[in-house]
Amino acid sequence: MRMYDLITKKKHGGELSDAEITAMIGGYVNGEIPDYQMAAMLMAIWFRGMTDHEIIEMTKVMAHSGDMIDLSAIPGKKVDKHSTGGVGDKTTLIVAPIVAACGGKVAKMSGRGLGHTGGTIDKLESIPGYRTVLSREEFFDTVNRCGVSVIGQSGNLAPADKKLYALRDVTATVDCIPLIASSIMSKKLASGADCIVLDVKTGSGAFMKTLDDSIKLAQTMVAIGEGAGRRTVALITDMDTPLGYGIGNSIEVIESTEVLKGRGPADLREVSLQLAANMLYLIGKGMPEQCRKAAETAIEDGSAFDTFCQMVRAQGGDDNVLRDTSTFAEAPYHIDVKADADGFVTKMNAEAIGETSVVLGAGRETKDSPIDLTAGLILHKKYGDAVKTGDSLATLYTSKRDVLADAEKLYRQAVVIGAEKPAPEPLIYARVEKDRVERY
Amino acid sequence: MRMYDLITKKKHGGELSDAEITAMIGGYVNGEIPDYQMAAMLMAIWFRGMTDHEIIEMTKVMAHSGDMIDLSAIPGKKVDKHSTGGVGDKTTLIVAPIVAACGGKVAKMSGRGLGHTGGTIDKLESIPGYRTVLSREEFFDTVNRCGVSVIGQSGNLAPADKKLYALRDVTATVDCIPLIASSIMSKKLASGADCIVLDVKTGSGAFMKTLDDSIKLAQTMVAIGEGAGRRTVALITDMDTPLGYGIGNSIEVIESTEVLKGRGPADLREVSLQLAANMLYLIGKGMPEQCRKAAETAIEDGSAFDTFCQMVRAQGGDDNVLRDTSTFAEAPYHIDVKADADGFVTKMNAEAIGETSVVLGAGRETKDSPIDLTAGLILHKKYGDAVKTGDSLATLYTSKRDVLADAEKLYRQAVVIGAEKPAPEPLIYARVEKDRVERY
Repeated sequence: MRMYDLITKKKHGGELSDAEITAMIGGYVNGEIPDYQMAAMLMAIWFRGMTDHEIIEMTKVMAHSGDMIDLSAIPGKKVDKHSTGGVGDKTTLIVAPIVAACGGKVAKMSGRGLGHTGGTIDKLESIPGYRTVLSREEFFDTVNRCGVSVIGQSGNLAPADKKLYALRDVTATVDCIPLIASSIMSKKLASGADCIVLDVKTGSGAFMKTLDDSIKLAQTMVAIGEGAGRRTVALITDMDTPLGYGIGNSIEVIESTEVLKGRGPADLREVSLQLAANMLYLIGKGMPEQCRKAAETAIEDGSAFDTFCQMVRAQGGDDNVLRDTSTFAEAPYHIDVKADADGFVTKMNAEAIGETSVVLGAGRETKDSPIDLTAGLILHKKYGDAVKTGDSLATLYTSKRDVLADAEKLYRQAVVIGAEKPAPEPLIYARVEKDRVERY
Repeated sequence: MRMYDLITKKKHGGELSDAEITAMIGGYVNGEIPDYQMAAMLMAIWFRGMTDHEIIEMTKVMAHSGDMIDLSAIPGKKVDKHSTGGVGDKTTLIVAPIVAACGGKVAKMSGRGLGHTGGTIDKLESIPGYRTVLSREEFFDTVNRCGVSVIGQSGNLAPADKKLYALRDVTATVDCIPLIASSIMSKKLASGADCIVLDVKTGSGAFMKTLDDSIKLAQTMVAIGEGAGRRTVALITDMDTPLGYGIGNSIEVIESTEVLKGRGPADLREVSLQLAANMLYLIGKGMPEQCRKAAETAIEDGSAFDTFCQMVRAQGGDDNVLRDTSTFAEAPYHIDVKADADGFVTKMNAEAIGETSVVLGAGRETKDSPIDLTAGLILHKKYGDAVKTGDSLATLYTSKRDVLADAEKLYRQAVVIGAEKPAPEPLIYARVEKDRVERY
């Protein structure tokens, strides 16, 4: 089997066989297939796409290119959750404890932030003492005791994806649904959960800017998950506007505890409850409506918040800051961005708001950038809100006084104030299950 | 300027600017742009194509990436000729002396054979003593004295093409008209002639299998030539059937001298006269009909053959073998392939016949294969000819007795004998001049 022939086949729109996909990914990982041939293949895939069968097969081979985590030491069904990335998206911090409080098992490996979106692991590290690196035994033990553990990605997870992603990143082949789907799902399959709920963000702050593309990506990932024997559901949720009011690391942990305490922003609470309900549904805790009720109860009776505190303690963190969030470290500098007109917020550019948080120090521009755990934004006015001249639109927090002017300018550009109240936008656009799309 | 952005632009169907093309080719030649990025670009070009403006600009930049040969030491208009490659295509050996005999200047660098097509330089080396490597001064001096010199490619001609071609060859991006056209024409532009006649082969033995693709390639190359200030014409000629009856090295030199002596196969004579007439037309020797007459006269009065002999002597060759071709070295082994049915030759697969000549030793399988100058085929029956059982279809010549059985088998598969006399096929399909296509 020659890579040349596989490129030719794909270039002409042919379907690669299972054996060809295995040879291609294997050969690329072991260095027999050079980058330039894989680059030509990736571009051919960008133009021709892949069939579901090809994508499922490629994802499985990519997952098996490294460690396949065996979660069988944890009794019961394990359920994972993945977000395609958004601004102010802190749902893992809320959803994981809810599901655990309802009897689910969440053995979750999360990532760090890069670019305009934050990462769960960075956020958790704003809790004093919280360890994001655990041994395999500690990880399993925490899940068995608390029902949940959230740690950083460890081990040699899907090295084929690592190598392919690096190549896509320099050959302009990142924006390709089969390649995005196989990249995300190869890591999910290797992570070992039985069930997966995907939160596919759509809109200005998301990787997928249109609803149609978001649904297509969701369908592809659901097909992969189900094709690999994992029950999988995806929700398409809004990312035209940041989720909740807080963007940053400790800022998002604080807002998450608010939701777990039965308060917090309605949009964040709603998306979190829907994700949690779908996770519980997949592991067999009843019909979606029942699961939704169970999730609400776990907030109301305090069991979800207690579970979060338990996990934090189990991983060495100080849960007192969660109980009294005023004790979190605070950024030394802040300013308010004030409205210069009366009207309504008619548009928010979520990506630009994410970039504002990076300028303030809350995110990374490159993989090795340091991060300011106290930096970020608290929004006061969101899409559709009435605004009067002089109202604070948002408060910006940072440890670097000299970035405030740039950050304020960026934030102003991200928010449009118009005369008319805009029509409300949906929070959840669709739900994708195997062979089924419900649009809301 | 980042290569990433250029790939993105092309991927979405955009047109690269002159500055972008210069940066891209320059960066690739000097190693700043890695193979994997160029591979992604080549595949994007395969899908999106290039505008004539992009192709012309890219070809000029590729030509200027190495030596630009200055032929100004040769007075008068210099005219070059290029064939896209065919089986039994020995027209350079006939056309170059005709044009020189009519007052044209042909300072020609030719290539060696690779794969199923032969190369002019290999053929000329079957003449005892003929030197295909001359110094720049000897080359110019030969053209000034004889009107013609044919040597091997020397110097650092279009290194950008060399590097790009090697990459295309391993990334399945050879079959792309903008890339084929720029590859051929970059070398022609660097070779320094004022006028260029292109012989674009079409059919089973050609790189372009369909007439439409052949015309498109011809139009693209003519646009490049004219865009770079070189008068350029292309003929689309048949390569469904090999040209003439001889295929090999000394075998083709012998057949060429037959045409120059006023004999030889009609198809070979006709294509040669048309090519020569167009070369003379481009350098201002009159209207095409006049030029055609002049070419015929140069054969009839012996001046074309004399010119060929002069050039061969000037380059150290023994022209006595041309005067008495029975003195050429002969292959030690030969067999006749005999017809096993009555009927007509209804199909010849020229590419398979070319491969037969390679098996016999006349061509190269890889760049470093040795070549047998006496090996090859002489056809006795061509497309449309009546055949009786036992007639010799062709004689195969070789120095390697053990390849005869394989070669015979291959040859048999290449020739189809049917009951009905097939309709004749055109020899010359079309002529392409700037902004003008005449189909015959």
